[in-house]
Amino acid sequence: MAVAPTTIEVLAEELARALAPDRVSRSAALREQHGGGETYIPSVPPDIVVFPTTIDEVVTVIGLARELGAPVIPHGAGTSVEGHVAAIHGGISVDMGRMNRILGFDLEALDVSVEAGVTRMQLADHLGEYGVFFPVDPGADATVGGMVATGASGTTTVRYGSMRENVLSLRVVTAQGHVITTASRARKSSAGYDLTRLFVGSEGTLGIVAEATLRVYGIPESIAAATCSFPSVDAAVQAAINTVQLGIPIARVELLDEVQMEGIRRLCELKQEPLPTLFLEFHGSEASVAEQAREVEGIARELGGSDFTWSVQQEERTKLWEARHLAWEAAKALRPGCAGMSTDVCVPISELAECLRDVREDIDASGLVAAIVGHVGDGNFHVVFLLDPDDPAEIRRAQHLHERMIRRAIAVGGTCTGEHGIGVGKTKFLELEHGAESVALMRALRDTFDPDGIMNPGKIFPEPTDG
Amino acid sequence: MAVAPTTIEVLAEELARALAPDRVSRSAALREQHGGGETYIPSVPPDIVVFPTTIDEVVTVIGLARELGAPVIPHGAGTSVEGHVAAIHGGISVDMGRMNRILGFDLEALDVSVEAGVTRMQLADHLGEYGVFFPVDPGADATVGGMVATGASGTTTVRYGSMRENVLSLRVVTAQGHVITTASRARKSSAGYDLTRLFVGSEGTLGIVAEATLRVYGIPESIAAATCSFPSVDAAVQAAINTVQLGIPIARVELLDEVQMEGIRRLCELKQEPLPTLFLEFHGSEASVAEQAREVEGIARELGGSDFTWSVQQEERTKLWEARHLAWEAAKALRPGCAGMSTDVCVPISELAECLRDVREDIDASGLVAAIVGHVGDGNFHVVFLLDPDDPAEIRRAQHLHERMIRRAIAVGGTCTGEHGIGVGKTKFLELEHGAESVALMRALRDTFDPDGIMNPGKIFPEPTDG
Repeated sequence: MAVAPTTIEVLAEELARALAPDRVSRSAALREQHGGGETYIPSVPPDIVVFPTTIDEVVTVIGLARELGAPVIPHGAGTSVEGHVAAIHGGISVDMGRMNRILGFDLEALDVSVEAGVTRMQLADHLGEYGVFFPVDPGADATVGGMVATGASGTTTVRYGSMRENVLSLRVVTAQGHVITTASRARKSSAGYDLTRLFVGSEGTLGIVAEATLRVYGIPESIAAATCSFPSVDAAVQAAINTVQLGIPIARVELLDEVQMEGIRRLCELKQEPLPTLFLEFHGSEASVAEQAREVEGIARELGGSDFTWSVQQEERTKLWEARHLAWEAAKALRPGCAGMSTDVCVPISELAECLRDVREDIDASGLVAAIVGHVGDGNFHVVFLLDPDDPAEIRRAQHLHERMIRRAIAVGGTCTGEHGIGVGKTKFLELEHGAESVALMRALRDTFDPDGIMNPGKIFPEPTDG
Repeated sequence: MAVAPTTIEVLAEELARALAPDRVSRSAALREQHGGGETYIPSVPPDIVVFPTTIDEVVTVIGLARELGAPVIPHGAGTSVEGHVAAIHGGISVDMGRMNRILGFDLEALDVSVEAGVTRMQLADHLGEYGVFFPVDPGADATVGGMVATGASGTTTVRYGSMRENVLSLRVVTAQGHVITTASRARKSSAGYDLTRLFVGSEGTLGIVAEATLRVYGIPESIAAATCSFPSVDAAVQAAINTVQLGIPIARVELLDEVQMEGIRRLCELKQEPLPTLFLEFHGSEASVAEQAREVEGIARELGGSDFTWSVQQEERTKLWEARHLAWEAAKALRPGCAGMSTDVCVPISELAECLRDVREDIDASGLVAAIVGHVGDGNFHVVFLLDPDDPAEIRRAQHLHERMIRRAIAVGGTCTGEHGIGVGKTKFLELEHGAESVALMRALRDTFDPDGIMNPGKIFPEPTDG
């Protein structure tokens, strides 16, 4: 199913008239770029790319799309890894990047309202001046709208929660072209259904997120970074479990496995043996941060951890976490010239060590190269396969392993994706995770919100043609 | 619209056959009790009360209700304050109280799975043996299912979040009689729509919550309680704002206004002048708790706070918080023999002081008696009107004030209910808060989940006959 060429002509003309000619493009390069994202999934270019600057223009775009039966694909910074922006049925890519104003900030209520195209780093710069920060950090410099759409999370989720916990309210243009506000600015409410959380993680299938009101937090008085290596992944995971169990309010706890650390060793030309390593961060008062570090050091030592090093100095902290920040580059150093295929699952933390052990055994037995990085406080981990893009057999083997990993995660009470979303990459696992009845309800819900089927079709739910 | 007497006969027979005769009742006393709750809203008895003991029996009840077109009203502990269990169209009250087993507990993953009829205190007893606790505390000894249904929160929400943040997954019997699990046990997921959060706060209109998996937390090493009185409500609220802004991880911060404190003075025959008072609780290590208390004491002193007293000793802590625990009794002491009508709103905390001032002025100008208690860290507060139940004019005046208060809360970016829910008591404010388009989406969503309209009809959404 694609949009007819004559319809595209009409759409492009109407859009240019309604917005502005220079904010409606059919250039091949722009289309190619907008159909891709940071992913192994091949780009599927949309027919048209538009750049609205106001919510009214978004309404207009959706109105024309409905009238002419064209798909609408919301687009943020293009950092999705599961093919969320692939225009698999053609249509209009709505690039929200020019809607990037900060709309309001309330220091006492600790909330900020922004347009969907504001990026994570832009927001951080703005908030930093007031001594506050927005905690959700997926790594990429994604837009707030994109982070809402995938239900993003990241390194700080163990302490501050994911987008679900940090979005107070959304302003959305629905699939039927209405502008709604999903909630008030109150910290909590029991007034009606939670539309906010319904749009968080809906991957552009229910409407276009145009604005968001987010919780922010005071920048802690003191921040400490720490690293510690362990004799095994099991020991490192157990240290994370014990830390959380004791109620130590750890702000970040990241695991790099021995293969990932071998990449670091090569990239940075280090001499030491690569060992599974935890990267930690503590937030609080000076005294509290020091106490947290000492407590975690004690936990680590009991589990055979060595070289526990920590610091509150900015320069030292940056150095301590350097290896974590280089993870992606380091993974690629394991097999120069190859392409990285990144995936994520999330399991109950009590199942994490065994799950990681099984996944590592699978990888090693297959002869493939893959690094593991985990947000271990949440039971969430990423596997980055380093693949020869010209070797279809190798890619098939990786896909086979990937599928085993997901089935294993679901079997132990976990999810097929902790933070990347379903996109087109994981549609076949949706029913395995949720069951047929739940997926039927989700589909019915989508059809209720989007009776014309124009909003990012082919995402989340398997298509009849999907394997 | 009511269920025809002949249909009730058939239903009762079929239910008795399918469940067990002694778990299906038409006794007037039981029906009266099940149509009420702890509320000023008059009881509307259901036609039949059933007590299922398994999820299959819940499926059977819903199946029969669909077949015969009878409403189904889920019932927990009956502690609702907004008429959620009133059988305004008759039908079957499904008392979940006998489904009260603890199904599973995972100390490493820090989660527990329970049947919906488990009560808050039963859960606390069970978890306490393992050194962990479930933080959501609405005051009443509600069931977990009821707390899910109203999106409950309470005194600890400022630190640990509400039900929304602490329910990992639900097992639900849908309005169409299917048993679904809304999510895995993973701490976070981006796999499809967030059905969990859709059922949290849905007030029994989308299905019956049969089981829940909840986050639990390690009992802190040290707990301190504190109290401090202030020259004005403004000063007390400002102390709470400054505390949260500085990132002090306060576990509870409750405000009792001067009228509420006057009730305490009368009830406990105290001599001192009634002043607005904060009741605080700190969780953490011994050192951290002491540091938090000292910091808040400093904040309070700058704002004119006096008599800051704190303790980590259980006995002292109980004594310090005694007045807070007596709030309801104390409010009634303000006007012996009168009935209490409790309501709640929630506003951005930056609007809280002014909102409280306006509400207090309104109450005093009206000549009515009402006490104010607030979960001020969240911007949430309760007003308890003390009314003569035999004076319709007085009740009308209170309703008028109540409505002004809600309109004011919504006007400053707040919600008509922070934690009590809509029930039948606040249906007229739903559209005022959310707008017509949002409410239309919510209705469409309900109709998608419950095409037969059997699930707790007349709740959340205004009926054609509602004012």
